[in-house]
Amino acid sequence: MVRRAAYASGFPEYLPSQRAVELSVLDSLRRTFELHGFASIETSSVESLDRLLQKGETDKEVYLLRRLQADADDDHSGLSHSGPDHSGMGLHFDLTVPLARYVIANAGQLEFPFRRYQIQKCWRGERPQEGRYREFTQADIDIIGRDELSFDADIEIAAVMAEALSTLPVPPLRLQVNNRRLMEGFFLGAGAHDVGAAMRAVDKLDKVEPDQVRQSLVKDAGLEPEAADRCLQLASIATPDVSFAPAVRALGIEHPLLDRGLAELTAVVEAAADVATDRVSVVADLRIARGLDYYTGTVFEIRMQGWEHVGSICSGGRYDALATDGRSTYPGVGISLGVSRLLGPLIGAGLLDASRSVPSVVLVALPDADARRSCRDIAQQLRRRGIATEVAPEPTKYGRQIRYAQRRGIPYVWFPKPDGSDEVRDIRSGAQVPADPAAWSPPAADLRPSVVTPSNVTEESSP
Amino acid sequence: MVRRAAYASGFPEYLPSQRAVELSVLDSLRRTFELHGFASIETSSVESLDRLLQKGETDKEVYLLRRLQADADDDHSGLSHSGPDHSGMGLHFDLTVPLARYVIANAGQLEFPFRRYQIQKCWRGERPQEGRYREFTQADIDIIGRDELSFDADIEIAAVMAEALSTLPVPPLRLQVNNRRLMEGFFLGAGAHDVGAAMRAVDKLDKVEPDQVRQSLVKDAGLEPEAADRCLQLASIATPDVSFAPAVRALGIEHPLLDRGLAELTAVVEAAADVATDRVSVVADLRIARGLDYYTGTVFEIRMQGWEHVGSICSGGRYDALATDGRSTYPGVGISLGVSRLLGPLIGAGLLDASRSVPSVVLVALPDADARRSCRDIAQQLRRRGIATEVAPEPTKYGRQIRYAQRRGIPYVWFPKPDGSDEVRDIRSGAQVPADPAAWSPPAADLRPSVVTPSNVTEESSP
Repeated sequence: MVRRAAYASGFPEYLPSQRAVELSVLDSLRRTFELHGFASIETSSVESLDRLLQKGETDKEVYLLRRLQADADDDHSGLSHSGPDHSGMGLHFDLTVPLARYVIANAGQLEFPFRRYQIQKCWRGERPQEGRYREFTQADIDIIGRDELSFDADIEIAAVMAEALSTLPVPPLRLQVNNRRLMEGFFLGAGAHDVGAAMRAVDKLDKVEPDQVRQSLVKDAGLEPEAADRCLQLASIATPDVSFAPAVRALGIEHPLLDRGLAELTAVVEAAADVATDRVSVVADLRIARGLDYYTGTVFEIRMQGWEHVGSICSGGRYDALATDGRSTYPGVGISLGVSRLLGPLIGAGLLDASRSVPSVVLVALPDADARRSCRDIAQQLRRRGIATEVAPEPTKYGRQIRYAQRRGIPYVWFPKPDGSDEVRDIRSGAQVPADPAAWSPPAADLRPSVVTPSNVTEESSP
Repeated sequence: MVRRAAYASGFPEYLPSQRAVELSVLDSLRRTFELHGFASIETSSVESLDRLLQKGETDKEVYLLRRLQADADDDHSGLSHSGPDHSGMGLHFDLTVPLARYVIANAGQLEFPFRRYQIQKCWRGERPQEGRYREFTQADIDIIGRDELSFDADIEIAAVMAEALSTLPVPPLRLQVNNRRLMEGFFLGAGAHDVGAAMRAVDKLDKVEPDQVRQSLVKDAGLEPEAADRCLQLASIATPDVSFAPAVRALGIEHPLLDRGLAELTAVVEAAADVATDRVSVVADLRIARGLDYYTGTVFEIRMQGWEHVGSICSGGRYDALATDGRSTYPGVGISLGVSRLLGPLIGAGLLDASRSVPSVVLVALPDADARRSCRDIAQQLRRRGIATEVAPEPTKYGRQIRYAQRRGIPYVWFPKPDGSDEVRDIRSGAQVPADPAAWSPPAADLRPSVVTPSNVTEESSP
């Protein structure tokens, strides 16, 4: 039953019914973001290579662009062949680098705080694997301030993404939140000489043995063995509510930055818990460091339960300086949802599909070739009332026309009669009733393809 | 008053209110396509260079892709550096080449006739100019048959695109239709030895003097001077209805292919005229050849009145073989709308903008920091009923909060009261009324940003 579209490795394509699932997810995300006042922007797919390589670790993943004939004629493209000097242009690998450029370029014409969502393709030259593609769709929300941005924006970003995700037909999701100030304050209070080294050590807990992390905390971060143990205890705290705060206090470390971090994380977890459901749980997880990114306060990660092996499908946090332009600094907080990483594995495994492969609710049967114009009129009357309708392509026997509808999942076939006594049949039940094209409507649930989950994916999550 | 976002030459970006215009246009196109039963697909942005270069004339325009580090490590990408042998991958320059590949790759899982729409970015390394970009959005509809496709599909494609365009806030559009069989039959009936040469000669009428075209018809196509004159007369026929047919007959040329072409063009013009409005006129224009494409019957072009200098914003036609896979041939008919070419010049000239830069209908004013949670509750009650709402970011003086709304074009400010006697103000009129967040709704026209046309662009079209 699993169907996949053929595609170049890492460049996934969906069949129409699979695309209908993706479209309904994107519509749902957009709807939530807009209800919260986030404005859509799109940025160019292309950025200067200099900008793309500012975060030095990603250079292997960038796709470089050049005009095929760039060497052969006068290069007026600005996209010249890129040599090792990193001139030229490449495809963006995320939506944060473009946002920083966009904010600086248009600062005089944007209103701050600037709340935007952005749903676009990104490209990375990674080795393809489950949930990791070379072309993939991201859905980002960010709030950007000019020179200042209230901490309430952190709370809002977490709550909006939790609400957006709770509407999706996917396995339960776990939003893990932490706060870099809390960690830094704790490490400082514990006596670390090198807070960055402590952060990097803890960030490796997923990959190496706790004992190695302890050694690194002592050796690289300058902590006493007993203090290193407390840092490991800190990293083991994960609570579905604000009870992490007394648990941290019980470790006996004191620092003003720790106080601020605890207060911030408490506020974020409280607000996100307000919108959390069975589908999206919120956890304060004090191991989450996102050590390789430039976050300064709140940090987020989201994982899909039963699909932890595909990695985090969402990440983000607070950055005190998304960009600066000499006159102003632009702090921000944002979160980025990997739509392809979320949906690709589920759709690929046949766990998500649509109830039909076409938008059509009704197929108007064609009694004979001469009836085509009157059939078109019937279809237009239905469309004018928002009912997606096709006219059968050929005046074949009705049995064949019904099979045309069945193969596409179109639920209704309309039978025109010369005397106007038209009838419509629900081909799922066989029920057929008289109908007037100016008045008949299907149940609201039939108006659009619905997402179906053959193995009840939203409750039973493992593949 | 004209605002433009900064962007790399040829890679346009919109400000949020401009993007709102584009989004509303894309929504409107999608809605029409879906009401007619076209299913959405997206294809990879990347195609093999071999495939992209099958139409030999476009090779200068292709953007080649390679991984920045492709030379430095084991190239597992399949996207190796492309030398002059044209191996490697490039970005697609239209949506027809990818459609042909998609149809072949998934033929076993698609239902034919396959009706799809596709709205995606394309890339061409052209010299940027008004309406011509290096990155641009296309909106295509096609109907693809397997081995056969009824001519009624031509009629349907013309009617659907005419209907889709008639909903857009743009200057009047002119859909020009012709038929290659009509032209070929006429040239053959007139005695041409080389029909292709005749087609190419007539296709140049836009660029060279009629006398040169006449000479070419005689010299290259093998026509008698008198017959060449009739071909020029044919090319001068343009009628807003089916009266082109008797005008062609009056030229006295006879050929079976001409008969078929006249019948087909008559049917397309009749059907498109059914949905034509003041905004989209339909013209049978017997000069339109689209000589450089592989069309075999109906051909389309659309121009924007007053903006003819940006070229055709839409083109398409019938192709008897979109693709073949050895067992089957896939004939199709389609039309491609250049969304960026249509909107870019209008938005760039300040002739199209949105009534506000954010989706928000309501700003909930924040009386003091302690009220934030109750303000969030008010906002959620409004959102649950589909009313996009923001809470003011800071508990500043109400005057300042109202200006926050004004600068973004948010029409309503909600004033919470501790005793629940909330009020809402329409800040355009100043009218303020008591309101219950569980019941109050704005007029439907305020629910989404509307497209505004400062210079009444839809009636008065010249820049």
